[in-house]
Amino acid sequence: MNGPAAWPPVYDDEYMPAPDQRYWFPKLETMAPGERDAFILARLRATVHWAWERSPFYREKWTRAGVHPDHLRRLEDLRRFPVLTKDELRAEQAAHPPAGRYACIDPADVARVHGTSGTTGKPTMFLIGRDDWRRIANAHARIMWGMGLRPGDTIFIASFFSLYIGSWGVLAGGERLRAACFPFGAGQPGQTLRAVRWLLETRPAAFYGTPSYALHLAEVAASERVDPRDFGLRVMFFSGEPGAGIPGTRRRIEEVFGAACLDSGSMAEMTPWMSNGECAYRSGMHLWQDLVYCEVCDPQTFEPVDYGREGTPVYTHLERTSQPMIRLLSGDLTRWTDEPCECGRTYPRLPRGIYGRIDDMCVIRGANVYPSAIEDTLRTIDGFGGEFQVVISRERAMDELVVRAEYSAEVARRAATAPDLLRALRERITVRLAVTLGIRPIVRCEPPGTLPRTEFKARRVLDNRSLYETALAGADERAGCPRRGTPDQS
Amino acid sequence: MNGPAAWPPVYDDEYMPAPDQRYWFPKLETMAPGERDAFILARLRATVHWAWERSPFYREKWTRAGVHPDHLRRLEDLRRFPVLTKDELRAEQAAHPPAGRYACIDPADVARVHGTSGTTGKPTMFLIGRDDWRRIANAHARIMWGMGLRPGDTIFIASFFSLYIGSWGVLAGGERLRAACFPFGAGQPGQTLRAVRWLLETRPAAFYGTPSYALHLAEVAASERVDPRDFGLRVMFFSGEPGAGIPGTRRRIEEVFGAACLDSGSMAEMTPWMSNGECAYRSGMHLWQDLVYCEVCDPQTFEPVDYGREGTPVYTHLERTSQPMIRLLSGDLTRWTDEPCECGRTYPRLPRGIYGRIDDMCVIRGANVYPSAIEDTLRTIDGFGGEFQVVISRERAMDELVVRAEYSAEVARRAATAPDLLRALRERITVRLAVTLGIRPIVRCEPPGTLPRTEFKARRVLDNRSLYETALAGADERAGCPRRGTPDQS
Repeated sequence: MNGPAAWPPVYDDEYMPAPDQRYWFPKLETMAPGERDAFILARLRATVHWAWERSPFYREKWTRAGVHPDHLRRLEDLRRFPVLTKDELRAEQAAHPPAGRYACIDPADVARVHGTSGTTGKPTMFLIGRDDWRRIANAHARIMWGMGLRPGDTIFIASFFSLYIGSWGVLAGGERLRAACFPFGAGQPGQTLRAVRWLLETRPAAFYGTPSYALHLAEVAASERVDPRDFGLRVMFFSGEPGAGIPGTRRRIEEVFGAACLDSGSMAEMTPWMSNGECAYRSGMHLWQDLVYCEVCDPQTFEPVDYGREGTPVYTHLERTSQPMIRLLSGDLTRWTDEPCECGRTYPRLPRGIYGRIDDMCVIRGANVYPSAIEDTLRTIDGFGGEFQVVISRERAMDELVVRAEYSAEVARRAATAPDLLRALRERITVRLAVTLGIRPIVRCEPPGTLPRTEFKARRVLDNRSLYETALAGADERAGCPRRGTPDQS
Repeated sequence: MNGPAAWPPVYDDEYMPAPDQRYWFPKLETMAPGERDAFILARLRATVHWAWERSPFYREKWTRAGVHPDHLRRLEDLRRFPVLTKDELRAEQAAHPPAGRYACIDPADVARVHGTSGTTGKPTMFLIGRDDWRRIANAHARIMWGMGLRPGDTIFIASFFSLYIGSWGVLAGGERLRAACFPFGAGQPGQTLRAVRWLLETRPAAFYGTPSYALHLAEVAASERVDPRDFGLRVMFFSGEPGAGIPGTRRRIEEVFGAACLDSGSMAEMTPWMSNGECAYRSGMHLWQDLVYCEVCDPQTFEPVDYGREGTPVYTHLERTSQPMIRLLSGDLTRWTDEPCECGRTYPRLPRGIYGRIDDMCVIRGANVYPSAIEDTLRTIDGFGGEFQVVISRERAMDELVVRAEYSAEVARRAATAPDLLRALRERITVRLAVTLGIRPIVRCEPPGTLPRTEFKARRVLDNRSLYETALAGADERAGCPRRGTPDQS
């Protein structure tokens, strides 16, 4: 790789570390934070200048905010640049179809067209340049190397190949890593059963998909009397949902499959979206700051919070020439830390992953409730069957939180002769959730198979209060990242 | 590109012809047939030696047949090598799981795992090496160049991305061609409607899919009051079904979309499957003989028939190191010619495309009936709605051919006040089919929307005679090629 001065960076496609080497780029991954800041600043300045020179959209936005690329003298100056929202991108593409005025490359250099996969609302279009696509492949290969993947490993890519960029990003990284890629793709009826058969047949080293899909796959395998441990998977990595970062879900996946469960993913717009990505030590996603610069910010001021504090990630591309995103507001909720990781990488980390949304935290009778906290608690309870649904209603005068939880097949069998079992389970769930959430939910225990399954991202929250329905309107447009909605706090 | 002596061939990934150049590789594409034979022979000998040295499967098969690579002194000697069937490949993978003993490369060099997408029977696995994948991309780019595609064109890839190799082959070729690839993928509910919106939004130069899917897409567009001509497509190319080579279907697609309709496709096993591929002059698929060597053979003796005659294609890879196929029997039915094409390429051609199967030609009351002939005839008839189904039964003493044909929306409207209209249409269809087929079918005219639609490959023949059901058993395993079943004539 060339030094920080040359931008856009050019990587050697033939480069491959020795298999026993821990890091893809040892120097970049272990450099002292101060030294890294200088590296990031150089890339940041190049990116911001690139956008200023090529994008009337950014020029207008920054001029309105009274900032100019020349103001970017220290890394701290970045916070003077206003955050960017997904709604702004959508409005820009509507006003200047089809791609908006932030494409920043010659149309002839576009290698890939993708887009949000929403069924409601106008989708947004992602254009990715040819050189960017190579850099994305390099970035993902590097992060997958950190996950423990090596050349010759077979990667089973279970998620749908279409507009959704998640699958494509893994494929590009896997190709660059010289893995054997098996782009299985989900989405057609009966395909999960076929996935079970192919996994048994090929015994791949790694699996990529969403946590929901992995759990669904395990259920289908069980119904065929197949033990998912017989797939022989070593690494399972995920994006698209927070699940893999939720301790209870991770534990369950690791138990069922006998493989390490790793979390990754920022936002589809931020591809290389793996720049939030765990290493083999699974201590929370590293922020690979030299690829995409992430500031975890106060959700009101959009100033970075101190390490150890909670905030919302604001992302800036450092290697993208096509549709560079500069301070894109995620609206996600996380806590970051700079405490060292055993792997030796010096990147900040998100020890609990991304566990909520600044806009889908449900306030119920004054308590802040995150669906991920409900999931995490349920998964620690013996007798919980794996699927659940949260229903928030205002049918009575007061908000009600209803948690529908399936019990396990084992409980179902035993309940036939022990009718008190279900009552005891319900009480146990109610008490544990009340402790976690600070409010007492109404718990309903449902027979196995009652709740809707998904082959893609699970939607487990139904809010019947009109207030909340509005906030959920953008939920169909999530892609490639653990997100829940579309913030608009700019 | 290096000369014929060097094998496996290595292509320069940076090579790109000038946009106004007609041929990707002018010399190879226009050389005199005799000169080409020498080129092919050199590659053939290298391929056969490669397989002999690395594959116990081929060694055993050829030893049983009393042939050895050294017997291959002239091109004609190839016919001494026995044909290979899909059933043999399946049996070999079952006996030596998972990939059989014809993989021929180091497992660490596998770039892609694909497979047949059958729901019945054991699927077969395709392993493609890293260098092969690059050669496939080069081959497809070269053929797509001949179709009139150029760098910077946007290619909308409509078919499903999964085991099916069709979509992946186009994507690889499109990337190498430096086109902007939009890997849309079909397969999820509601996606065709989304395809209509994205086509309007992005106005791509080219479309790839199956003919059935294109016609389905046009119907969905019409139901949304969208004229498919507004997509602005220039080139539509197809594989997976014979449709694009059937004059009536081609005419209909060209009328509805206002774009050139081109046919391509051999077999998934033969990837680069575009080696049967039309040029912009659309005079039938060229056999790109320096990529995959095709002999059109007598279905009994498997000796090549003379140009001008009908036979079944037998294919041999000339650039594959992973799973090289040597004399793979297609079981398809075609006629080949060496008459010149306006484009100036000197390859043989299949002027009527692939129009049947040696094993699904239906013999009904002594007449040879091809479903493609029925389709072709129907599409010339005014008032035909576009969908049809063929039902062959033996309910009475004699075989019956029932053709269910949908009438158009226009006919449906007019029939409300003119009840004789449908009777006249039925009579017209019956007479025309009787002329074409030599037997008189029972025709049923059905209202628009009656018959099942498909988003993938159309299955329009139902044979209720047990004999025929057996022949159809392998039909779910077609992929990447205009095939109907699985021959086993070895």
